[in-house]
Amino acid sequence: MTESTRDPIADRIADELGYSFAGEMRIGGRYASVVRDGRTVYLSGQVPRVGTEVVVTGRVGEQVPLERARLAAQICALRALALLRRTLGSLDEVGQVLRVTVYVQCTSDFTQHSEVADAASDLLHRVFGEAGIHTRTSVGVMALPKNAAVELDMIVAAREIA
Amino acid sequence: MTESTRDPIADRIADELGYSFAGEMRIGGRYASVVRDGRTVYLSGQVPRVGTEVVVTGRVGEQVPLERARLAAQICALRALALLRRTLGSLDEVGQVLRVTVYVQCTSDFTQHSEVADAASDLLHRVFGEAGIHTRTSVGVMALPKNAAVELDMIVAAREIA
Amino acid sequence: MTESTRDPIADRIADELGYSFAGEMRIGGRYASVVRDGRTVYLSGQVPRVGTEVVVTGRVGEQVPLERARLAAQICALRALALLRRTLGSLDEVGQVLRVTVYVQCTSDFTQHSEVADAASDLLHRVFGEAGIHTRTSVGVMALPKNAAVELDMIVAAREIA
Repeated sequence: MTESTRDPIADRIADELGYSFAGEMRIGGRYASVVRDGRTVYLSGQVPRVGTEVVVTGRVGEQVPLERARLAAQICALRALALLRRTLGSLDEVGQVLRVTVYVQCTSDFTQHSEVADAASDLLHRVFGEAGIHTRTSVGVMALPKNAAVELDMIVAAREIA
Repeated sequence: MTESTRDPIADRIADELGYSFAGEMRIGGRYASVVRDGRTVYLSGQVPRVGTEVVVTGRVGEQVPLERARLAAQICALRALALLRRTLGSLDEVGQVLRVTVYVQCTSDFTQHSEVADAASDLLHRVFGEAGIHTRTSVGVMALPKNAAVELDMIVAAREIA
Repeated sequence: MTESTRDPIADRIADELGYSFAGEMRIGGRYASVVRDGRTVYLSGQVPRVGTEVVVTGRVGEQVPLERARLAAQICALRALALLRRTLGSLDEVGQVLRVTVYVQCTSDFTQHSEVADAASDLLHRVFGEAGIHTRTSVGVMALPKNAAVELDMIVAAREIA
């Protein structure tokens, strides 16, 4: 067994941003953060929550400037990676990120959804390299759970069948 | 062949809510309610329609209170189950619910999307038990087809390859 | 190797609409327009862009009438087909269109999302016949990248495993 290469990168990015996802990541309802079907791994929509607090709330293009929306997208992505790691043991078990959907709670004249989503895409590329190159859809929505500025979900292919 | 355990539960919930999905479930355009690819079953977005009528319309957080939005989510889920049953013969053929996306037509300050979606998640758990534990994304949108209060789509894994 | 039957149909529709997708289709960020995992092919959200210009912008139900929104949905679908063709070599390699999601940048009282999406569904049926019959979700959103009137993403099953 070789040493993980991706997990420390994800840790370093979390450190740089000043957030930790080491604690419990409970969810309220009768659903799961991650469900695996063979090699395909589905992740629930993540908001920029750290511990029990959603750290970037408000409407992008109004209270929330672009840079904070990009931070929110990064936190959502880091949460998704933390969940993947718990499920797969290590991010090295990810074969390919297949799909990312980024929902931005924005004003009606906001147009920079791609710039928000790029922050998550860059992070995935930094952690996974080529395996992090995914398809992506970004849209601007009316409202998100708990007034989150951004929500992100993901589908990933694991290296091996479960 | 053992008797179905899940189909009568779904029937009972529909009865409790006072709705029947026994009739025709036509769709207008050149698409399908269900498409199966091997074990993976995709379902089209369902609005809370019973027969030809969308029974919960309007904006959640304004005309539509939380409890009616939750009812809408349950009707969407029951429609999805009715469609799955027609495709698979019985809900017992469902191996795992993989992904549910819940779109809520809501006001700009609505934040209880998870509480709306929980009504669908609870219903799936009641019908399927562990096999109903899915990943989930809930978002609030500007508008939905036919002024529906909620729309829900789903990806499911069948037990067997078609 | 028999001659392609679907590629010329897609070309003809693009001709009829007066658009060409022959040029480069670059994307800005660290993601991809298409990612393939075995037989499953994911496509990124497409806006009605031709070359470097988004040709249908604005809010549907206000500046953008239904017919132009339908045109936008067709252009999004044609872009998706152009991308699929580059990845698979020919549209004849598509086994089945599995899922289409259509996001409409619309007014709060717009209800004809299905009519917008029908334009894309009809186009897919015209090109693929039965193999183009997909599941579909259409929703109305607050805003889309670059003020696009419509955005569309897709999941497709290829005939053969890559």
